[in-house]
Amino acid sequence: MGQKEISKSVLKRLPNYLAYLKSLPAGSSVNISATALANALNMGEVQVRKDLAMVSSGGRPKVGYLRESLIEDIEQFLGYNNTTDAVLIGAGKLGRALLGYKGFADYGLNIVAAFDVQPTGATESGKPVLPLSELERFCRENKILMGILTVPADSAQQVADLLIAGGIKAIWSFASPRLEVPGNILVQYENMATSLAVLSMHLAAQINANNEK
Amino acid sequence: MGQKEISKSVLKRLPNYLAYLKSLPAGSSVNISATALANALNMGEVQVRKDLAMVSSGGRPKVGYLRESLIEDIEQFLGYNNTTDAVLIGAGKLGRALLGYKGFADYGLNIVAAFDVQPTGATESGKPVLPLSELERFCRENKILMGILTVPADSAQQVADLLIAGGIKAIWSFASPRLEVPGNILVQYENMATSLAVLSMHLAAQINANNEK
Repeated sequence: MGQKEISKSVLKRLPNYLAYLKSLPAGSSVNISATALANALNMGEVQVRKDLAMVSSGGRPKVGYLRESLIEDIEQFLGYNNTTDAVLIGAGKLGRALLGYKGFADYGLNIVAAFDVQPTGATESGKPVLPLSELERFCRENKILMGILTVPADSAQQVADLLIAGGIKAIWSFASPRLEVPGNILVQYENMATSLAVLSMHLAAQINANNEK
Repeated sequence: MGQKEISKSVLKRLPNYLAYLKSLPAGSSVNISATALANALNMGEVQVRKDLAMVSSGGRPKVGYLRESLIEDIEQFLGYNNTTDAVLIGAGKLGRALLGYKGFADYGLNIVAAFDVQPTGATESGKPVLPLSELERFCRENKILMGILTVPADSAQQVADLLIAGGIKAIWSFASPRLEVPGNILVQYENMATSLAVLSMHLAAQINANNEK
């Protein structure tokens, strides 16, 4: 595959190319060059050229890429075409917002069920909320490979252990502490609270600086 | 203030402490020690002790902190008590999900209005969606300091320029390319698409490894 060697910074840029290519109106040119893409996204041409060459072999000198083929190649590369079934644990405010977010389908992510210590039947979005006690069996029986963690910090490790026992290979963790997991399990952390704290700090510093003027 | 010297790693840990402290049931002990917190969150005691000492002067030997005071001190430190008014630009799927997310109030974030090139009057959550042409004036008149960007990649820079012209000092950017901003403007990037791509890659590699067995 060779995909393992792809750096995280490339993976960061690819979704941006994709979003731009998809945002172009239907009547746009069928071709797009690395130069045009670089200009539109305010990026270095050499970098864009390298990135595209890594995911698609469709580039032709002076013409560039067929836009539709390039979109397909990037989506294929990023795995957006292979739908991944996932479970979500913790049906609080954040969990419910993620359950209701329709944009995940664009990335091939399908949340099939949510779990909570206080199951409620179903959410506004129609997804079932099942008791936590059924999590491990559900994952095993449905061959679920990804778990999304939106539980409070102190139960994150315990729930991660249940997921791993159920056969999960990847965990997307929101606002949880570092988890201890075996080497073949990947945990990706998302910390919106941290981002907000960083932004608040900056604003506080700015306001102070203004007051001292 | 001295707050500028706080490292990002501390800012990452503080929301976890806070979430744990708030998750404790009402009948729990009024005191909490750094040791107890470290054990509960599976972290090093020395680190927790240092972090808490940085944000609160309420720690007492052998007793620890008064739980309620520690919660207040951390919230104060993170700026959660000072509500920040923000605008959101781009009322697509992600923008609407963020507009409807009630959890931001816990972090002192209040999204007062959304803007879009195709304004729709109001969202499901009752927040107004105004035309992009009114963005700059709205920010200036309402002294808005934070903008949340959920626009397509190719309009991100243009909208950021409008925000900055309107007096914004901090930008929270979802899935946009690097923005060019003056030195006093902080941009915090959130890349859920990247996280999903990293997780998909890992799952693809795992499945391949299994198939080759």
